[in-house]
Amino acid sequence: MIQLYWKNATADAVGPEHGLAPTDLANVEHRIIPAHATVMAQVQAGKLGYADLPLNAEYRAQVKAMAARYQPNTTDMVVLGIGGSALGNIALQAALNPHTYNLMSDRGRGGPRLFVLDNVDPALLHDTLRLLGRRLRTTLVNVISKSGETAETAAQFMIVRELLRKHLGDGFAQRIVATTDAAAGTLHEIASAEGYAMLPVPPDVGGRFSVLSPVGLFSAAMCGIDIDELLAGAAAMKLRTENAEMTANPASMLAAIKFLAVTAKGKPLHVMMPYSNRLTMLADWYRQLWAESLGKKVNRAGEEVFAGPTPIRALGATDQHSQIQLYREGPNDKLIVFLEVVKHPVDQRVPEAFTDVPGLAYLAKARLSKLLGAEKTATEYALAVSQRPSVTIRFDAITPFSVGEFIYMYEFTTSLMGELLNINAYDQPAVELGKQATFALMGREGYNDMAAQIKPFTRLDKKHLA
Amino acid sequence: MIQLYWKNATADAVGPEHGLAPTDLANVEHRIIPAHATVMAQVQAGKLGYADLPLNAEYRAQVKAMAARYQPNTTDMVVLGIGGSALGNIALQAALNPHTYNLMSDRGRGGPRLFVLDNVDPALLHDTLRLLGRRLRTTLVNVISKSGETAETAAQFMIVRELLRKHLGDGFAQRIVATTDAAAGTLHEIASAEGYAMLPVPPDVGGRFSVLSPVGLFSAAMCGIDIDELLAGAAAMKLRTENAEMTANPASMLAAIKFLAVTAKGKPLHVMMPYSNRLTMLADWYRQLWAESLGKKVNRAGEEVFAGPTPIRALGATDQHSQIQLYREGPNDKLIVFLEVVKHPVDQRVPEAFTDVPGLAYLAKARLSKLLGAEKTATEYALAVSQRPSVTIRFDAITPFSVGEFIYMYEFTTSLMGELLNINAYDQPAVELGKQATFALMGREGYNDMAAQIKPFTRLDKKHLA
Repeated sequence: MIQLYWKNATADAVGPEHGLAPTDLANVEHRIIPAHATVMAQVQAGKLGYADLPLNAEYRAQVKAMAARYQPNTTDMVVLGIGGSALGNIALQAALNPHTYNLMSDRGRGGPRLFVLDNVDPALLHDTLRLLGRRLRTTLVNVISKSGETAETAAQFMIVRELLRKHLGDGFAQRIVATTDAAAGTLHEIASAEGYAMLPVPPDVGGRFSVLSPVGLFSAAMCGIDIDELLAGAAAMKLRTENAEMTANPASMLAAIKFLAVTAKGKPLHVMMPYSNRLTMLADWYRQLWAESLGKKVNRAGEEVFAGPTPIRALGATDQHSQIQLYREGPNDKLIVFLEVVKHPVDQRVPEAFTDVPGLAYLAKARLSKLLGAEKTATEYALAVSQRPSVTIRFDAITPFSVGEFIYMYEFTTSLMGELLNINAYDQPAVELGKQATFALMGREGYNDMAAQIKPFTRLDKKHLA
Repeated sequence: MIQLYWKNATADAVGPEHGLAPTDLANVEHRIIPAHATVMAQVQAGKLGYADLPLNAEYRAQVKAMAARYQPNTTDMVVLGIGGSALGNIALQAALNPHTYNLMSDRGRGGPRLFVLDNVDPALLHDTLRLLGRRLRTTLVNVISKSGETAETAAQFMIVRELLRKHLGDGFAQRIVATTDAAAGTLHEIASAEGYAMLPVPPDVGGRFSVLSPVGLFSAAMCGIDIDELLAGAAAMKLRTENAEMTANPASMLAAIKFLAVTAKGKPLHVMMPYSNRLTMLADWYRQLWAESLGKKVNRAGEEVFAGPTPIRALGATDQHSQIQLYREGPNDKLIVFLEVVKHPVDQRVPEAFTDVPGLAYLAKARLSKLLGAEKTATEYALAVSQRPSVTIRFDAITPFSVGEFIYMYEFTTSLMGELLNINAYDQPAVELGKQATFALMGREGYNDMAAQIKPFTRLDKKHLA
């Protein structure tokens, strides 16, 4: 069971200016209780699509059947997607398989090598396709896009599809699974016409909340990750988030602390710092969830609020040698959220050596997990000495179950934050303009007016070049 | 030649509240000119060790000789280091070799596989060592630590050394290169006693400024990166930074803009957003340089200033689907620094397909580099519409030369920022407490008093657990 530990965010630990005093908690409780009731009502009315995913037996069965069909004949899997159609896949794979997974022999792994290509960087795509080379016949391409018109995913898909056609002839369609809208849309139509296997993107779940749907589950299942346990963890957390009592509900308590950090304690920067390399990409997944959901110009009354804590990803112990100088001595504008692992997937023991060397003797026979844990505690302490608050999310172990718990907890916390900030946490209006401007620059029909507006940005003005 | 383009940080582009008006530039010029003179005097007096690295022929020759000795008999290289002893190595490799480098055949690569292990995560070390398995005989371990007493590096080193001894017997010392202080220190002594080959850590260069010394150069040379070109690029930029005229010197102009962003425009968050996967890790290198150099509690007069812009790493186009919603609609507290590549290492063309599909036809025959460039321009435009300033660092191409230019430019910009903020940019006093606390928690002799102080942090207080 994952748990939230928040003592080092209290006034006792870091002083009343930067930490939470009992009065702060009493004040926020008055807001959390109605916010929690509102979100719970939405969950119960089926209005928050993501909340139904942990118990969706149909999606689970579809994903498992698809994985059973393709896993035996697939050595390499390429996911084409971006944003919410990639970050969950990357996070699950990094957390639940070794970082050396793609370097293992085909027999040593639990499934195909996995390449999630979430950019239109030409070298990224070229180098990956070149590597696949003669393995294309056993490569599975999973293209993920609700509409099929996301420019980045569409461009990649067109290139990869052509390559498959060239090498595999008419059989190319057997090597593509399209994860897309189940009823309509450009990718749905292409997949239907060309006979690709399909998995559904849920109609009522935004991309950044979709990791527990076929969007995130299929590549995980293909790579040997136990998606039943993942969903069981999410379902267990869902039960815990139903608790209306603030201090007994980790999502409520996390939302309360983050809301106070922004509104009462001058801490709009929210750092997530796992003490585990495997959990780093969960922090990247969180970056999208937090930034896109809470970065909003107007509140639900239409007033300008320019809301949105800035999520930052860090890594312990590594960033002690990079960011901690700033976190301790720079502006006191950050809340640090540590992720801590009680039992690591494996451990290593330092041998008994150099016992006569003063600077090294203390390391003899120590477990690396103990050293990593000590580094984390030491950082927590050093931050507190500088009056910098932190909280810790404790994982018993890195398992599909605990990762499922974490994902659901953060999604629910995001919903609560939306309520507390009185904003719409489920749209992303500011992303649209850049998409349209890209269409205009690429010459898509119907975007001439916009092309004229952007023109000054396409020319280098030498006066401003150094 | 890399160039700084700053039109979209001006008042013309984003308005006078958030952009630089001519008066802002005139004001900052009065500060930049003496700051530049001070830094140049330090460079000329040989007081800024990093500034001498581009022209240090001795280091270059030592590194090349060492690479010539080991490259032919090495299939795998493991770097043990953390912070400044790892970030440069990672950044050079990611920028200048394909992301698939470690997956290529031994013949297909320009050198050994490279694993930079910059954490004491037990799974990270275990999984890497397991992968190396029977290749240990052709594995080269490069342990990098000035003193040899950095806890993380020392612990890893002790484990890896034991493994080598066990598998290779007395010959194990032939498979270790220690990059360490040339005269004294724990690692120097061990390396001397056991007969490892050695490379010097410069005595007068801090870790975060050391990438162009043997610290960063050796793994690069081993992996086929042209370090002569890298250093030539840095030397070329060094010449350009000598220019006292602010608008003609990219480092001065960058420092001016970043200083104004923090002190006059309410923008303490400095995002670096490359539109290139290969340049992502340069942004991680920058994170350390910026945070550790500029995150300072007191200025040189001893006054509390809590200085330090927060560096943030992002990636275009990917983060358009993750962070741009926040960057456009959240608090207007960010300066975005784009890295743009004019000519990518390779290109890919979208085939002529789906020309009858309205949402896809515009992509037919487009180059991916054009699409990626359009996405960047579109984002620049969309940010400007929301009055969010940005600058762009333009790379002609991703070459050792341009990467060398970039590194030196940012180092010199950091020196200028230190002057402008009137802080010591070369120390890191706040890192010390965490190190001592770690020693205390690990039972190192002499740290009993500290252990008593930390004790409350080692116990979970159930009252604060949700």
